[in-house]
Amino acid sequence: MKVAIIGGTGYGAVELLRLLHIHPYAEVQAIISHSSAGKSLTSLYPHTDGFIEGNMETFDVAALKEKVDFAFFAAPPGVSRDLLPPLADAGIRCVDLAGDFRLKDPSVYKRWYNEDPAPPQLLEKAVYGLPEWNKSSIAEADFVANPGCYPTASLLGLLPAVHNSLINPASIIIDAKSGLSGAGKSPSAVAHYSEINENMKAYKLGTHKHIPEIEQLLAEAGGAAAQPISFSTQLVPMTRGIMATIYADLQKDITETELLESYKNYYSSHPFVRLRQLGEWPATKEVATSNFCDIGLYLDKRTNRMTVVSVIDNLVKGAAGQAIQNMNIMQGWEQTTGLWMLPVYP
Amino acid sequence: MKVAIIGGTGYGAVELLRLLHIHPYAEVQAIISHSSAGKSLTSLYPHTDGFIEGNMETFDVAALKEKVDFAFFAAPPGVSRDLLPPLADAGIRCVDLAGDFRLKDPSVYKRWYNEDPAPPQLLEKAVYGLPEWNKSSIAEADFVANPGCYPTASLLGLLPAVHNSLINPASIIIDAKSGLSGAGKSPSAVAHYSEINENMKAYKLGTHKHIPEIEQLLAEAGGAAAQPISFSTQLVPMTRGIMATIYADLQKDITETELLESYKNYYSSHPFVRLRQLGEWPATKEVATSNFCDIGLYLDKRTNRMTVVSVIDNLVKGAAGQAIQNMNIMQGWEQTTGLWMLPVYP
Amino acid sequence: MKVAIIGGTGYGAVELLRLLHIHPYAEVQAIISHSSAGKSLTSLYPHTDGFIEGNMETFDVAALKEKVDFAFFAAPPGVSRDLLPPLADAGIRCVDLAGDFRLKDPSVYKRWYNEDPAPPQLLEKAVYGLPEWNKSSIAEADFVANPGCYPTASLLGLLPAVHNSLINPASIIIDAKSGLSGAGKSPSAVAHYSEINENMKAYKLGTHKHIPEIEQLLAEAGGAAAQPISFSTQLVPMTRGIMATIYADLQKDITETELLESYKNYYSSHPFVRLRQLGEWPATKEVATSNFCDIGLYLDKRTNRMTVVSVIDNLVKGAAGQAIQNMNIMQGWEQTTGLWMLPVYP
Amino acid sequence: MKVAIIGGTGYGAVELLRLLHIHPYAEVQAIISHSSAGKSLTSLYPHTDGFIEGNMETFDVAALKEKVDFAFFAAPPGVSRDLLPPLADAGIRCVDLAGDFRLKDPSVYKRWYNEDPAPPQLLEKAVYGLPEWNKSSIAEADFVANPGCYPTASLLGLLPAVHNSLINPASIIIDAKSGLSGAGKSPSAVAHYSEINENMKAYKLGTHKHIPEIEQLLAEAGGAAAQPISFSTQLVPMTRGIMATIYADLQKDITETELLESYKNYYSSHPFVRLRQLGEWPATKEVATSNFCDIGLYLDKRTNRMTVVSVIDNLVKGAAGQAIQNMNIMQGWEQTTGLWMLPVYP
Repeated sequence: MKVAIIGGTGYGAVELLRLLHIHPYAEVQAIISHSSAGKSLTSLYPHTDGFIEGNMETFDVAALKEKVDFAFFAAPPGVSRDLLPPLADAGIRCVDLAGDFRLKDPSVYKRWYNEDPAPPQLLEKAVYGLPEWNKSSIAEADFVANPGCYPTASLLGLLPAVHNSLINPASIIIDAKSGLSGAGKSPSAVAHYSEINENMKAYKLGTHKHIPEIEQLLAEAGGAAAQPISFSTQLVPMTRGIMATIYADLQKDITETELLESYKNYYSSHPFVRLRQLGEWPATKEVATSNFCDIGLYLDKRTNRMTVVSVIDNLVKGAAGQAIQNMNIMQGWEQTTGLWMLPVYP
Repeated sequence: MKVAIIGGTGYGAVELLRLLHIHPYAEVQAIISHSSAGKSLTSLYPHTDGFIEGNMETFDVAALKEKVDFAFFAAPPGVSRDLLPPLADAGIRCVDLAGDFRLKDPSVYKRWYNEDPAPPQLLEKAVYGLPEWNKSSIAEADFVANPGCYPTASLLGLLPAVHNSLINPASIIIDAKSGLSGAGKSPSAVAHYSEINENMKAYKLGTHKHIPEIEQLLAEAGGAAAQPISFSTQLVPMTRGIMATIYADLQKDITETELLESYKNYYSSHPFVRLRQLGEWPATKEVATSNFCDIGLYLDKRTNRMTVVSVIDNLVKGAAGQAIQNMNIMQGWEQTTGLWMLPVYP
Repeated sequence: MKVAIIGGTGYGAVELLRLLHIHPYAEVQAIISHSSAGKSLTSLYPHTDGFIEGNMETFDVAALKEKVDFAFFAAPPGVSRDLLPPLADAGIRCVDLAGDFRLKDPSVYKRWYNEDPAPPQLLEKAVYGLPEWNKSSIAEADFVANPGCYPTASLLGLLPAVHNSLINPASIIIDAKSGLSGAGKSPSAVAHYSEINENMKAYKLGTHKHIPEIEQLLAEAGGAAAQPISFSTQLVPMTRGIMATIYADLQKDITETELLESYKNYYSSHPFVRLRQLGEWPATKEVATSNFCDIGLYLDKRTNRMTVVSVIDNLVKGAAGQAIQNMNIMQGWEQTTGLWMLPVYP
Repeated sequence: MKVAIIGGTGYGAVELLRLLHIHPYAEVQAIISHSSAGKSLTSLYPHTDGFIEGNMETFDVAALKEKVDFAFFAAPPGVSRDLLPPLADAGIRCVDLAGDFRLKDPSVYKRWYNEDPAPPQLLEKAVYGLPEWNKSSIAEADFVANPGCYPTASLLGLLPAVHNSLINPASIIIDAKSGLSGAGKSPSAVAHYSEINENMKAYKLGTHKHIPEIEQLLAEAGGAAAQPISFSTQLVPMTRGIMATIYADLQKDITETELLESYKNYYSSHPFVRLRQLGEWPATKEVATSNFCDIGLYLDKRTNRMTVVSVIDNLVKGAAGQAIQNMNIMQGWEQTTGLWMLPVYP
């Protein structure tokens, strides 16, 4: 299958290229970049030397329709809202890595993103692509809104507990930490090496755009109205990796072993989630460059509260890897196709 | 004043040396090391070349009594329990950087440390040395148990709220992150560069020895029996720095501005705690190498929960700096003496 | 083809596992570890969860002969000297990642390694496995001594110039820098996080074991007696990556463009060496996790000296990747088999 | 003494503030910033909270003449060329941390900087401020051109050998490595965290502006015409620190011990240069945050070449610390005043 990458110069696009290059059924046929059309990708990324032929191109629906059957949007926010609909209309299936189609309620989008939402009928049509939650809907989708990096780590850490009503949804606190690649490729003060090396920094407390995305899915999973959550984001001096440490009050009387069993049952048919045994918790490097989400649990009898540690590589399971997983499902392929690899360690 | 450092080869000792070298009234007269007696410190730490005369010595109460008026214990756990009492009996005032004298209840010590506690009468005599809590008791102490690094960051983030009953003590969750220097100088798998660089790792969930220390002081500050807290520790790939992100349910109806005012009032006479304005939160590098604890607040009206971000340099306010602050208070000097310096940045 | 890994718990072994898992023709059938026999690899390396069945085993020639056709030695120095010969005698082709069989002259080995060399007849039989130098000999080898990490980066930076007599061999200076994974998995003072983070450290000047290895091959390539080189090694705070910056006086009158052409010609049939255009030099991250060696050149007309910047991933082209490249060549497969992947970036 | 800092928002200015705050005789009275006049420094650098009163100001000779006796220029290149002369004319002694007055020959400046040089009579008047070379000239200077960071590390590693004609000046090769703070505070692609973390990158080979500065002083020290040197610069993933590894052919027949003695003699009255014993070499962290330059030597009998490893903190001995050292000398104070501190370690 021939695929296109729209928004070819960011880290998401480069990670898609790396993973698609080893995918047995998909081949990148076009890289679209508004700002760098006519340039080679290698002039921006020397590490791609020898792998990418041809230059980056401008966006052209007719040309893409000739060339490809599938497209990934790895563009900044607001681009896919305008460019994805015509592509979808042309019969090209799409996965969007941006946030434009993730929130079902346009007014919620407007409030958190402070930008105009996509048209309601398109928001309805878009399928939120978290395979461990709604794999069958993804299989039938025309286009998929790929989850955000923080929501992926957070939701995979919570889904079994929420789905089985083990915890009080009003008590959920997510303390999230991220490496710097989540901030993208554009130089900025916050991602300037001397500022963030040997440093850890809290930012956007209570205002991060991923909050409504998490709340929307938790409501769906819990079969109830959305409950507000506490959600903090912190930058950690590393390039890749997200750790979500999650706290919630138990509302069922279960043991730590039962808690682990409930998670194991939930994820029994989901190969990309791995559970640590009791007394062990994952480190971000244990999933680096892979599509895994590793999870460790702790149940504190003193406080009757559970703690979940959930880690992903933000550029893989938090972006490009999950997008390919979604493509696999949409195409009817085994979801692990081209993604079943050992993490790079150390 | 002449001082001795007992346990001269760890990071705590080296940091004491750095800070005492610029202290106007105190001078290091002896460095005691069981394992390295007879060696020069410079043979272990080339960066000290030109600053330290003489070699390290063995522990000898009589010799120390001749030489010094004050001693810092920077030794591994269990050492000060045995060696501090004879020194104190000899009239040498002491600050202990280890955990041996921090917990008042020997059975609690036994349970969390899994070692024999110090004798009860000594535990009673020891003063817990958090100057922002009990400065006047410290002033009269014969020996002071210097707080742990995590408790310092956590307690300074909580004291105003607990003291003023703003929050429900049963709801406190502390998500703590630390750089690697907290793990000390001895090589270990967890602190091996290739293992923890570009990595973040959760460890000792619910079993860290600093938990009872925090609970003991919160009980004291809240005027009630100790409530169990949730406390998680995570390693971050940096050498220095602790960030404690703290969550608690409000039990008074206050605004974010009132919350900040309450913290400002509490810390008005405590120069080492600095409060960020609303909407800003501190980064660990903003206090690096200094004795400051910087704090930022967030009050979430949606969840009626407060979030506190509290940062320190674990080797300074979390160890050697606070120990010198305690010495200053014990000696009747201005508590900022020798400690009022700009953080190293970047 | 079934393969065994001898010395299963170090970083070299883990990198072999990662790369062999995506190799289309080779499959790991046994992991041998003296110290960890009977344990699962996942108990040591949680990131391998789901990939490795069975436990590690003790070394047993007969058992291996039943199971495998090929073996990689990723053991500490001195192990393959004793264990490789019986395996080779049993008809199992081997690649040794240690230094035991790299030096042809036993007395040179003795002098630099300060240990007993392997028997001379075995040293003669061993083929030094640098495919960009002697691919045809590797194809016919029974067992191959895989080059060291520093020699790989250094030699690939020098071979075209030495082979074409462009430079004075007596003037060669190699300033080499390495990440910490080269120091292996065992905790040590030099690789302790707090010691080497935010630090750069020179070590083993003039005494590194890789010096005679480089000199041996340069003599071979230059068709002359070995000339002593200057070689410095320095640790850089990163996990993966080697940069060799090489200086040599020109002895032919050529332009920078001609220099680049000569390198391009030499490497025209060697896909894993990539040359930067003039005025650009590589960064270690541009080859991270891949088998590439990227090279940039500079010719200084003022000093009539050339500078070469050569970078590799020490665990891939400097160890496991090159070992697999050698296996491919020994087996008559395309040398890029299972290794033609984009570097992980960023 | 009252001092001003011109160019108040870069890392050089912030480091001057940190060091001047603990200086016993100098006090910062004005911070001048073209771009941030009217703002507080704390709004840009939260770590300075509590230390800096008043806002930054515009440049005004008359106002400065009223307020201060001494000024540091920590501005971008080209600023001091225009603003320093009027200040010097007004009787304010100055140290310039930029490169505008370092090169004596305007045509050399023009060639390497590609900008207009300062007027020749001012270039003649400016004293190059490397106290270990020309302390007595500094003592009488009206204004001092503070050396660049790379030249400081390189020259201190070479001065004794060049001054005593131990080496062939035409053979000098300097392989220099720097942390990222040398690139300044402005965000850029090369200093973007995800690009340079876990990475090492060569840049500006043969074209760095510090080359003519080193050559000018080596010529002066060797009493001969300038010889071109080979000089390479490489970025290392750390914030602070420069390591210069220097190679040169010996032209006198000396032993390693004699070489060390010659360095010890040269630096016997220069307290900020520390020499390692033979067989040991310094690490950048061993001088971090301090004004020291630590040097280790190696003499290779096989090649008759010496290797020197010289390390500094680029923001201290390579910038702000050396500037204060120069101020001390200009004012007739002990040169170590306010600078005699232990490095921060680890």
